[in-house]
Amino acid sequence: MPSTATHPSPLTPVRPASTALLAFIRGFGQVDLQPAVATGVLFLAALWVADWTVGLFAVIGTAVSTATAAVLGVDRGAIAQGLHGYSGCLTGIALVTYLGNHPSTYLLAVLGAILCPLLGAALTTLLGPYGLTPLTAPFCLVSGVMVLGAPSFDRIWHGSPAALADTTARVDMLTWGDIRRAFFSNVSQIFLVQEWQVGLIMLLGLTFAGLRVVGFAALGSMVGILTAWALGAPNTLIAQGIYGYNAVLVAIAVGAVLLAGTVPNGLYALFGAAAATGLTAALTTLFKTFGGHTFTWPFILTTWVLMAAVPGLPRLRPARAPAPSGDPVAVPGPSPLPERHPR
Amino acid sequence: MPSTATHPSPLTPVRPASTALLAFIRGFGQVDLQPAVATGVLFLAALWVADWTVGLFAVIGTAVSTATAAVLGVDRGAIAQGLHGYSGCLTGIALVTYLGNHPSTYLLAVLGAILCPLLGAALTTLLGPYGLTPLTAPFCLVSGVMVLGAPSFDRIWHGSPAALADTTARVDMLTWGDIRRAFFSNVSQIFLVQEWQVGLIMLLGLTFAGLRVVGFAALGSMVGILTAWALGAPNTLIAQGIYGYNAVLVAIAVGAVLLAGTVPNGLYALFGAAAATGLTAALTTLFKTFGGHTFTWPFILTTWVLMAAVPGLPRLRPARAPAPSGDPVAVPGPSPLPERHPR
Amino acid sequence: MPSTATHPSPLTPVRPASTALLAFIRGFGQVDLQPAVATGVLFLAALWVADWTVGLFAVIGTAVSTATAAVLGVDRGAIAQGLHGYSGCLTGIALVTYLGNHPSTYLLAVLGAILCPLLGAALTTLLGPYGLTPLTAPFCLVSGVMVLGAPSFDRIWHGSPAALADTTARVDMLTWGDIRRAFFSNVSQIFLVQEWQVGLIMLLGLTFAGLRVVGFAALGSMVGILTAWALGAPNTLIAQGIYGYNAVLVAIAVGAVLLAGTVPNGLYALFGAAAATGLTAALTTLFKTFGGHTFTWPFILTTWVLMAAVPGLPRLRPARAPAPSGDPVAVPGPSPLPERHPR
Repeated sequence: MPSTATHPSPLTPVRPASTALLAFIRGFGQVDLQPAVATGVLFLAALWVADWTVGLFAVIGTAVSTATAAVLGVDRGAIAQGLHGYSGCLTGIALVTYLGNHPSTYLLAVLGAILCPLLGAALTTLLGPYGLTPLTAPFCLVSGVMVLGAPSFDRIWHGSPAALADTTARVDMLTWGDIRRAFFSNVSQIFLVQEWQVGLIMLLGLTFAGLRVVGFAALGSMVGILTAWALGAPNTLIAQGIYGYNAVLVAIAVGAVLLAGTVPNGLYALFGAAAATGLTAALTTLFKTFGGHTFTWPFILTTWVLMAAVPGLPRLRPARAPAPSGDPVAVPGPSPLPERHPR
Repeated sequence: MPSTATHPSPLTPVRPASTALLAFIRGFGQVDLQPAVATGVLFLAALWVADWTVGLFAVIGTAVSTATAAVLGVDRGAIAQGLHGYSGCLTGIALVTYLGNHPSTYLLAVLGAILCPLLGAALTTLLGPYGLTPLTAPFCLVSGVMVLGAPSFDRIWHGSPAALADTTARVDMLTWGDIRRAFFSNVSQIFLVQEWQVGLIMLLGLTFAGLRVVGFAALGSMVGILTAWALGAPNTLIAQGIYGYNAVLVAIAVGAVLLAGTVPNGLYALFGAAAATGLTAALTTLFKTFGGHTFTWPFILTTWVLMAAVPGLPRLRPARAPAPSGDPVAVPGPSPLPERHPR
Repeated sequence: MPSTATHPSPLTPVRPASTALLAFIRGFGQVDLQPAVATGVLFLAALWVADWTVGLFAVIGTAVSTATAAVLGVDRGAIAQGLHGYSGCLTGIALVTYLGNHPSTYLLAVLGAILCPLLGAALTTLLGPYGLTPLTAPFCLVSGVMVLGAPSFDRIWHGSPAALADTTARVDMLTWGDIRRAFFSNVSQIFLVQEWQVGLIMLLGLTFAGLRVVGFAALGSMVGILTAWALGAPNTLIAQGIYGYNAVLVAIAVGAVLLAGTVPNGLYALFGAAAATGLTAALTTLFKTFGGHTFTWPFILTTWVLMAAVPGLPRLRPARAPAPSGDPVAVPGPSPLPERHPR
């Protein structure tokens, strides 16, 4: 069922190469749920600014993941929107970050990027009846399993290149410099990058996705800082963006993409951003016991809960077109529930 | 869709204040799945007998949770039955028990009680197609995340006020005094309270919910004691009610609320009570590795499994009205499965 | 709704005793998803060759589990196909392996075998709408909970009789002897048995299930060895079959039972076998932190993901008759999704 939004009209000659390039570029922006090409370009540039290995592995992951989806013959509209690239992008970055820049890591990145569309298809089946979408869960599952299993294998484990964030460090004074760095690092940490300048470029990229998107990203970042400070999180972790990147994603997803643009919906999104900030500490403690990684699980779980609650909350309204990418095809809603009560 | 059962008829003038008070009171009884007002009153009294902080936090949690549901505009019939209060009640008690009586804990109790109706709505969406209900899972999720995340935050963590139950202590002779204390503590431990006198008052409260309810509560408590003793659990833990409170809840839920009153159904409920007793040890071991808490997970998981199995077991029969609260609206059943086989 | 495939025709007199015996025998073969009687006979013989306690507990588990299903009145066709025996079989073996040959273990094996059909019915309800089946999950859940909870109870815990596999041992040269032992142990480790001769008998048993079944079992075993070697797993673990038994199960299930016999489907199954091999390391690391056991979880999770992804992958085709046992009744498919996209 090709849609005019994602396919050229009969009058325009189809150019597969440029279609593939656009799908690839859009994959980077879709990490923040944005299909705008300019957003993708600036995100890609920011990743190379962060580090050449981060940029290279992000390119490998996005390209292989998108190409795999095409080979597997999945829905072409979704591919064109970059919806099969973003999990591969994050998987590539996560693998080089936690396994180091070794030849074996390149092979694993390719393998992980191949697995992402499969996990995406499986989660779409499982979540579809509830009207939920996989978000970045394919990335979290593939990367989580690979990083967790890696130390068991001699050919892919070369010692840990990255130190785990210590969420139990003590709290100090939060300076204006901390707050400024936190505000931008909250955006870059979505891609596991700590440098606040990278977050600045990405926030610039989000302006091309529209005022509502960049506005909720900024509000989410501020809510994340405020919540972490109010709870008494260590200022070093706040400044590194460890406590805020999930808040940014929840604010964008719930505030600017999945729900309609009403005041109650916006407050709901920011409340979710605060909840995701607290959840980050609990999940990090849980994952640390077995050597797992938090990744974007707080965002995913918070967004799933918030969106699954919407049918029971009559003051909230889903977005008219539920797909984040302008895809005109409706996501199947939850089966009709005659009336709701929680027990 | 207002129902005559939960709303006054046109001839009776609506009195919002008393409706709110009844919803609040019923929230305490609904921890044991009972909407009877007298049950709620005696449970509330028992909690103040246990400790004034327990009573106070239970009141805060129940009131805030019920009020949040009203503000969010969820189904008024469910609110009136106390179905949006019980998870907040338990959350308040759990937070003061594991975080201590500090100003920050009051704020967290309010926040947790606000989150409970959201989790309730989300779980209702996810479990609805299977004909399952959230039970106390909103409490377990909200309190579990908050207690697990708390040590990461300087402003809310003031050291651990409660020692974890040590399920590996060795076994001694089980005295009649142990058995008597266990019988009543199994009822009070549902509210995280160890004093057997509190359980005695609560069992008295359950008599107002009907003979079948108090009968299955007593039977569940005895099955819990017997199972724990037969497996060789330490008698101190048995006497403290650690091994029996999930058995009581399973017996009430499956034996007196969710299934019809037949002999096979009753045996099924008591078998489930025994299974929940064993599951308590496994889950406590699991949760201890990352500092989590067992809470009422054994009850929830056992009841979900037992109820999900019912469509495949033709000798068992669900209750005519599936709602535990007299709510006349039908819970949507599982989608029609033409025939069942397990692989 | 009796089916002609599993019940004698009206001209043949029904003989309950032989029906029960056939259901019992088939339970052993159904561990590998095969209803052929000869396969079951050879599997049963192989288990007694492994060790008399293994054989005895497998018999107890299979018999009690099948009988429980009959008493509970579940679908007779499924019972006749051995579909209610295999989880009990594995549960019996797991309990004697991890708890030792004590009187209490016999009682637990009976209890565990009673629980398996209940878990099977519950999982069938939960997975049914997605067209997924429980596979060996009832075994993994029942045995996992029992083994995890056992050390808490004085009467059932007599010290650990089995050492956990150490997946972090270092790698050596892989000899031809290692490869030969691995090839057969990958088949026997499905039953938690390490001796390669047992795997040889079982592979012989699989020949009676057809060329496609034994072919995919052999291919799966080879893919498991190759993947583990390529990743750099310790050769002792490879030779013991620790890394390959899930690959064998995935290859049989996806390659020879659940999908149609096409080339893309076959490659998909072998890709899944490789993925399950890697997943084994990650899950073993995860389970070790709390004393849990990997069992056949890598097979189950990989197969669920692969099968849930099929509706989104138009190049793959499910088997015409979705039931692995010749049962002619259709498994309900997932609810109709008008179009698929992963976010």
